[in-house]
Amino acid sequence: MELWAYEEHNNTRLEFKVKQTLFVGRSKYQRIAVLDTVSCGKLLLLDGMIMLTEKFEFVYHDMLVHPPLFVHPSPKRVLIIGGGDGGAIREVVKHEEVEQVELVEIDPMVIDVCKKYIPTTACQFDHPKLKIHIKDGFEFIKHTPEGTYDVILIDSTDPIPGGPAVGLYSSEFYTDLFNALKEDGIVTAQIASPYFDEIVLRDYYLMVSEIFPIAEIYLAFTPDYPTGMWAFSFASKRYHPIDEYDPDRYLNSGIETGYYNEEIHRAAFALPTFARKILGKEG
Amino acid sequence: MELWAYEEHNNTRLEFKVKQTLFVGRSKYQRIAVLDTVSCGKLLLLDGMIMLTEKFEFVYHDMLVHPPLFVHPSPKRVLIIGGGDGGAIREVVKHEEVEQVELVEIDPMVIDVCKKYIPTTACQFDHPKLKIHIKDGFEFIKHTPEGTYDVILIDSTDPIPGGPAVGLYSSEFYTDLFNALKEDGIVTAQIASPYFDEIVLRDYYLMVSEIFPIAEIYLAFTPDYPTGMWAFSFASKRYHPIDEYDPDRYLNSGIETGYYNEEIHRAAFALPTFARKILGKEG
Repeated sequence: MELWAYEEHNNTRLEFKVKQTLFVGRSKYQRIAVLDTVSCGKLLLLDGMIMLTEKFEFVYHDMLVHPPLFVHPSPKRVLIIGGGDGGAIREVVKHEEVEQVELVEIDPMVIDVCKKYIPTTACQFDHPKLKIHIKDGFEFIKHTPEGTYDVILIDSTDPIPGGPAVGLYSSEFYTDLFNALKEDGIVTAQIASPYFDEIVLRDYYLMVSEIFPIAEIYLAFTPDYPTGMWAFSFASKRYHPIDEYDPDRYLNSGIETGYYNEEIHRAAFALPTFARKILGKEG
Repeated sequence: MELWAYEEHNNTRLEFKVKQTLFVGRSKYQRIAVLDTVSCGKLLLLDGMIMLTEKFEFVYHDMLVHPPLFVHPSPKRVLIIGGGDGGAIREVVKHEEVEQVELVEIDPMVIDVCKKYIPTTACQFDHPKLKIHIKDGFEFIKHTPEGTYDVILIDSTDPIPGGPAVGLYSSEFYTDLFNALKEDGIVTAQIASPYFDEIVLRDYYLMVSEIFPIAEIYLAFTPDYPTGMWAFSFASKRYHPIDEYDPDRYLNSGIETGYYNEEIHRAAFALPTFARKILGKEG
């Protein structure tokens, strides 16, 4: 018998052939599953949505983390909201100038499961600079003192109705994020696929644009997610992601990446014509 | 009963929910099928490989055609090898400076089926500048007089053993292409996905690099093909795709595109770190 795990989105499916089911469980917040796939290693599913494969998670984590950390000239204090798989932590601690990284994860079972079954991603949970808060990110940021963080990374699941991430796509949340950032802070977030989620992308972009003086959308090739194109938002109080970008920061850092580099940084902000139109940037 | 059409590649599948089967047949060269899908319109399969969906074929055709035609300063005579679906023709004839476009398609049934079932793609087969040759592209180019074409576009299927496209991935074919081009000619081709076809991509790049003075790889987000990342090659006798690129050529052309634009042109040639390594460009 062949076993295939899939995510279905808009009547298309992305499927991975499964060798073995490693974990299936239900936490207080969601269903969690880890499968071992034939071609892409471990596969993490939350509420049936693909979060990562071991083979390709480097794309998503590189592109959530490195663009803001290489634009901000001194990212000392970094907050990750979500990110219980540990991939964002792993990339953040590569930046030596980071003094403290905090993770706000609502669901401790995600952390435990990833530490046990996907250790290549969940490899820095013992890092001395890391502080973990098991809390709702939406509530956490509401009570964060103003001007606390240099960079905040929103590494959440999608806003499915009733799911734990719905509040993280609201204008209230982004106003709180704005306040929680220092006066030159940056927040990046994963959003949606421009190919299938046009309205999600447009509404999100318009919402963030109203709160932050600088708001840009950037893209990465994500084989783990349907359509293979994923959008991120870069919302910033002072630094523009291209105008203020110094490629030497990356080239001299010694940081090893699988996807991100100085050319990809600029290229990611180039949007295809149809995506420009979705965002009202053309025509 | 639900019907799903899929392409399987390296133990992952990309699946489209099917409303209706419109055509299934076998030509002298291959199996041909056209399905109507729920989310992406008509779907063309050749030997079970997804060639295009109506919704997303603009990505592939934009990126095969417009980079060479906007780099070459005067693309008067253009040859398409393969491309029986008509998508490349549609994009080529948008360029007013093109005086003649020729199509070499081995399989006339592909043209007939696409004209009947996918008329949004096969919409320019009656264009006065078009000349069709029903021939094997490999043989055709061998007998083309030297210096005939400004731009050649290789719009073939993948090189599956025994399939009609195998010869189009050979060094002999690229030597013939080199000779068939004028002294400042350009050839672009679809190749493979860097995520799953590392060896195909590397060998192809090395082969083309030995024959053409300028050889570069560029990428597009292709939701129709597994992994969503597809590589194209740009092989050129004189013009560099970035150094010789003048964005005003596009901006002043009045040509409407769904994917291609002046920023995407440059961005497409930026390669993720893992792809640089595959091509031996780093490390």
